[in-house]
Amino acid sequence: MRPPVVLVTDFGPADPWVAEVKGALHTAWSRWPGDTPLPPVVDGGHDIPRGDVRAGAWFLRRLWPSFPAGSVFLAVVDPGVGGDRLAVACRAHGRVFVGPAGGLLAWLGAAEDCAVVVLDRDLYRGRPDGGPVAATFHGRDVFAPAAAHLALGVPLDQVGSPADRGALGSEPPPAVGWSIRWIDRFGNAISDLARDSDEGRRLESGGAVRVGGALVHGPAVTYVAAPPGVPFWYWGSGGTLEIAVRDGDASRLLGLVPGLALALPDP
Amino acid sequence: MRPPVVLVTDFGPADPWVAEVKGALHTAWSRWPGDTPLPPVVDGGHDIPRGDVRAGAWFLRRLWPSFPAGSVFLAVVDPGVGGDRLAVACRAHGRVFVGPAGGLLAWLGAAEDCAVVVLDRDLYRGRPDGGPVAATFHGRDVFAPAAAHLALGVPLDQVGSPADRGALGSEPPPAVGWSIRWIDRFGNAISDLARDSDEGRRLESGGAVRVGGALVHGPAVTYVAAPPGVPFWYWGSGGTLEIAVRDGDASRLLGLVPGLALALPDP
Amino acid sequence: MRPPVVLVTDFGPADPWVAEVKGALHTAWSRWPGDTPLPPVVDGGHDIPRGDVRAGAWFLRRLWPSFPAGSVFLAVVDPGVGGDRLAVACRAHGRVFVGPAGGLLAWLGAAEDCAVVVLDRDLYRGRPDGGPVAATFHGRDVFAPAAAHLALGVPLDQVGSPADRGALGSEPPPAVGWSIRWIDRFGNAISDLARDSDEGRRLESGGAVRVGGALVHGPAVTYVAAPPGVPFWYWGSGGTLEIAVRDGDASRLLGLVPGLALALPDP
Repeated sequence: MRPPVVLVTDFGPADPWVAEVKGALHTAWSRWPGDTPLPPVVDGGHDIPRGDVRAGAWFLRRLWPSFPAGSVFLAVVDPGVGGDRLAVACRAHGRVFVGPAGGLLAWLGAAEDCAVVVLDRDLYRGRPDGGPVAATFHGRDVFAPAAAHLALGVPLDQVGSPADRGALGSEPPPAVGWSIRWIDRFGNAISDLARDSDEGRRLESGGAVRVGGALVHGPAVTYVAAPPGVPFWYWGSGGTLEIAVRDGDASRLLGLVPGLALALPDP
Repeated sequence: MRPPVVLVTDFGPADPWVAEVKGALHTAWSRWPGDTPLPPVVDGGHDIPRGDVRAGAWFLRRLWPSFPAGSVFLAVVDPGVGGDRLAVACRAHGRVFVGPAGGLLAWLGAAEDCAVVVLDRDLYRGRPDGGPVAATFHGRDVFAPAAAHLALGVPLDQVGSPADRGALGSEPPPAVGWSIRWIDRFGNAISDLARDSDEGRRLESGGAVRVGGALVHGPAVTYVAAPPGVPFWYWGSGGTLEIAVRDGDASRLLGLVPGLALALPDP
Repeated sequence: MRPPVVLVTDFGPADPWVAEVKGALHTAWSRWPGDTPLPPVVDGGHDIPRGDVRAGAWFLRRLWPSFPAGSVFLAVVDPGVGGDRLAVACRAHGRVFVGPAGGLLAWLGAAEDCAVVVLDRDLYRGRPDGGPVAATFHGRDVFAPAAAHLALGVPLDQVGSPADRGALGSEPPPAVGWSIRWIDRFGNAISDLARDSDEGRRLESGGAVRVGGALVHGPAVTYVAAPPGVPFWYWGSGGTLEIAVRDGDASRLLGLVPGLALALPDP
């Protein structure tokens, strides 16, 4: 079956931008000869904080393992649109990622199977209605047409010009070590401390982490295994340390926000 | 044509959780042999108040009659995830419902065609990337794989172990009799008083209902049939009594919230 | 390939209304004989300010050129639902638009290829579960069944009774001349002053526009071409004048809201 095109943007829910990107996908597909089944289009998430490429990268890293090999991620967190940052497509982890070079996609350079092209070919660029690329909307006019064709099986090196991994750009250096990366609707705080890291393995049998002035014990197995009202940590569904409180909101209770550092006990 | 998989959750719009569930569906489908067309995936709603299984049940009851027979509802309002509540799938009303036992799905037990299985089979459980079930995310690792296979026509009793209706768990008893169950974006208040109930038939020819201290007259046929500024009741599109005010917001005007009791005139 | 059905409503994200409309589409399709591939369903946008047909019309005009010919737009901003306003379908610009007559769709009357029908045929109306049309939910019971059949190729004049363009109703007269029509998530203010209008051509080589007391210079090519902190105007991706500030929020900085007039320099 056909793998999906997954959209991850900072466009928010209310504006026409997400739908225009989807229109560009369908317009590209409508010009395809024959009767190929359409790839499904999935909203990966459109509430990345605006312009926050680090949050976008976190979101993509969280998302891709749930999607099948061959999926195409169309990622647009793009404060430098129309400037001199490159537009790229990258095959990595058996999936394809399309978007602006820089912190949003630079992490893909570490994948063993990483292959990169620069989206510089006029055949795969342009407005859905045939006009030239809009300088302020590459999501619709550059990334969508490329993603549309990649999802139909057009080879990577036909959609753009092969480049080395450096074309992915570089990630801004992290401000702190392990940290909170996302607060979800339940007030759960999701960190980037992986269970299968050295520090993670050290915590495996239990221990406390310090965050925002509080000492949080764990691991618990799940929410209902913990006493109500007492914050705890657990290994979350993405394989990293998370902090929650049963039937409550850990983020409000402890003042947790993205970027807050996580301190581990001394080894 | 293939009926859809309909997602109803309390995951909200901003987090990766909804997309991970969709990824799990597509991952299951990508492993299916042959070239079956993909079932469409529909967002039923993701803004159920968090952990509110009664609101989730109301939403599902409201939604299912609009979808064709054979539709699969993947419902996740699951504060007890990872604890001892059962994970179930239920055929009822010609549709299939997948989710946690308890108040979210217990109402299905009253359907004549109700058949229940417990989702305990390893073949239909697990992370999309092949790992074990995450104790905090059964939406992705238990309910999604089951729903994916049910939507492709895998029989109910193959996806889980047949159980009696009691496995659906029980609904929390209602705090009051007839009540407001939902306030919509227009400020309309939707109650659970059905037109085809005894009390509904009694109101059919007109009468006033009392709610939150106000006496509201009706029925009106539609919004523009009522005078501006005066709240009224009418038989809503779901077959229950609703309260609105033309070109206004009845919920704000009268202080209506979910749970507020509806008092009828004496017979 | 099959063009999509695009939904544009003021239903918001939280209520069951959007999903019930989608259920009605799938229910209509489930009754179709044979094995036709399903048309994709795209969320065009559901956050049109409630009842604001002018904003809905702006959104539709912005959206349609990104979608392929043959796309079906199901548009519901319908404060007069159940009253005497007509329900219509209109072929225009090579697409099909379905919704309430009045300001939402009246602008289609100017299209050369405009053809209109009134949705008055019982065969293409009714609740998904077979009941009569609900007076308060034509989105589900009138517009969705019509859109579902039009998307499968049922001819326009079979779905409704041919009518002249007058059946589209009329647009409320604009309060001002050129104006701000939409503020997006980035705080960018999008006006309706088209680059290819007489006034637009006059501004082509540069000049200042006055809005809300501020004088804004331009055009810039894209955001990063402008100095930080200084608002500027540019030709946006929809071909009209927009106002932004690099890495900032022009709407907050200048107090811009929809409806605010745009004053051009004297010719």
